[in-house]
Amino acid sequence: MQWNVALLGFGNVGRALAELLHAKADDLRDELGLTIRVVGISTGRHGHVIDKMGVNLRTALDAVQHGSPITGLHQGRTIEDTAHFLAECPATLVFESIPTNPVDGLPALAYDFGLLERGIHVVTANKGPVAFGYHELSAVAARSEVGFFFESTVMDGAPVLGIGREGLPAAQIQRIRGIFNSTTNYILTRMEEESLTFDQALAEAQKIGIAETDPTLDIDGWDASIKTVILANVLMGADLRPADVDRTGIRGMELSEVKQAAAAGERIRLICSAMREGEQVVARVAPERVPLTDSLASVRGTTSIVDYETDILPRLTVIENDPGPKTTAYGMLVDMINIARGRHTAINENFLRKMEEV
Amino acid sequence: MQWNVALLGFGNVGRALAELLHAKADDLRDELGLTIRVVGISTGRHGHVIDKMGVNLRTALDAVQHGSPITGLHQGRTIEDTAHFLAECPATLVFESIPTNPVDGLPALAYDFGLLERGIHVVTANKGPVAFGYHELSAVAARSEVGFFFESTVMDGAPVLGIGREGLPAAQIQRIRGIFNSTTNYILTRMEEESLTFDQALAEAQKIGIAETDPTLDIDGWDASIKTVILANVLMGADLRPADVDRTGIRGMELSEVKQAAAAGERIRLICSAMREGEQVVARVAPERVPLTDSLASVRGTTSIVDYETDILPRLTVIENDPGPKTTAYGMLVDMINIARGRHTAINENFLRKMEEV
Repeated sequence: MQWNVALLGFGNVGRALAELLHAKADDLRDELGLTIRVVGISTGRHGHVIDKMGVNLRTALDAVQHGSPITGLHQGRTIEDTAHFLAECPATLVFESIPTNPVDGLPALAYDFGLLERGIHVVTANKGPVAFGYHELSAVAARSEVGFFFESTVMDGAPVLGIGREGLPAAQIQRIRGIFNSTTNYILTRMEEESLTFDQALAEAQKIGIAETDPTLDIDGWDASIKTVILANVLMGADLRPADVDRTGIRGMELSEVKQAAAAGERIRLICSAMREGEQVVARVAPERVPLTDSLASVRGTTSIVDYETDILPRLTVIENDPGPKTTAYGMLVDMINIARGRHTAINENFLRKMEEV
Repeated sequence: MQWNVALLGFGNVGRALAELLHAKADDLRDELGLTIRVVGISTGRHGHVIDKMGVNLRTALDAVQHGSPITGLHQGRTIEDTAHFLAECPATLVFESIPTNPVDGLPALAYDFGLLERGIHVVTANKGPVAFGYHELSAVAARSEVGFFFESTVMDGAPVLGIGREGLPAAQIQRIRGIFNSTTNYILTRMEEESLTFDQALAEAQKIGIAETDPTLDIDGWDASIKTVILANVLMGADLRPADVDRTGIRGMELSEVKQAAAAGERIRLICSAMREGEQVVARVAPERVPLTDSLASVRGTTSIVDYETDILPRLTVIENDPGPKTTAYGMLVDMINIARGRHTAINENFLRKMEEV
């Protein structure tokens, strides 16, 4: 069984995925019967390539690593731009990982919509389309009978959305609570454990590449809000946008506040939550003092955590400890496998038909 | 879409499942399109009932609560015994929850095998058949193209097996480590927090119904070993039996040991582990001193925890906090839903065929 896939976006995540598809090729074939052929790659600054016979991933990875265009691998007439790439690409599934637009999710939202409309599966690690267009994108995917999965948008490769879909059906989630932004958690941990000021800890985070040069999205709580909206909309049936979140970041957090909390046996964490209040789901991101007895307090550095409180399981907790660079790409691989297994179908109709005949 | 199901076993778990099927009937119909009809109930001491038109669950639950037989609900000629019940029962899926036999898994293993062979799906909360017959039972289920799911056998309703199946495909699990026995964890927590001796803490656990009158299976580590074997065999491809586990229980644990650990900033926990060593998987259950910084140390009372260490995600942790009486039954309901969704099929063949045609 051969699958033709394309990579839309070839930054850190797209390239890690290419490496992973290469490294796991034998396992995918032997364990799942899946042979994956990459028939197209669209990059932001290194051009576009389409080859129906399969693009050599090693050559493409090497080219980008050396700052060279990948267009030499292209077969056929020149690809002008991303829209042209999408129109020409002979893939049955597209892995989308272009940069997140935190304002409206564009243009990825439109690209993903167009692909789904044409009956092409989409796996994305991009939070923008999901935070701004989840309901529309799922509706078009369902109409086209294709998959639209995005496990990597929250807590990288940890199956936090998969658990909702596969592990908590027919349960009502009353509250979701967690720590989803690793930059702010890293800063708070460094302040608390090494008595750094906020500015010092931020500078450290920037030095090792955990924080961006412009850290606004992280430290003002936007990234955390976007992820909270994704969980609320997908798992709790809400229809929120990032601006609907009651949002407070950690910019200018005083070391004295962190120390006061520690003296009281507590830790300050940027807590994300989505909670049912009557018919509504209310979302909030804010620094909170958490007692050490709460598992959220024990989360250090770039580790992340989510708690699901449901009508049946009182509290289920998932922790992703020290994610590496491969984990986001792994979430995308899992999504592809689960689409191949038909996990995007609500109830397996063929199966039920067979049951009726019994 | 109507499903005819039967309950084999009507103890605490079977009755909680009957309550849950009743409580969630509207959600199952509205959200998943599933209408469930219970067409048979087989009890250990209250008789057997089969009714193709549907057994009144409320009446059956009330009868058992009053210590009465349920045979008044039966339609047709008298059911002699369990084998007779199984032969006559017109179900497409059987929920099995008869008592666990920790020596060889019988007779449940044979009942489950027979049902699967006849093309009837089996959902079980019974650890015996899985610990002693997982490979044989999965093989017959696959040959009959039916589901054999058992999420509730480890950590109740927490999706610890589902995460392996749905969230970690194409990853290699190197080690699984956790706390799976709530009785021993409750005893250790009481000893540590209230300076009770082992005998005092055990007596408390027995008083509130957490420990059995004969607590051997829990305190000597058999229950923990059985669960460890299930995870090793299902998620790591091992072929172990409970006797293969290097097993040490907590019987006779001295309060002074617990106190010494606490003084050193550690806690004693009954740690279960399964680890790859070359081509082998080695399983172990033993009390260990765990530093407070390890999330396993923070697990108190009846809460349970599992850590998966894989080649891709360094460490994924799942905690089920304070499970209630309904959570085991919920795991069985989830299994049924996932069989209805075709999750027992490796790759959705129809779907892939459609992909090829594109």
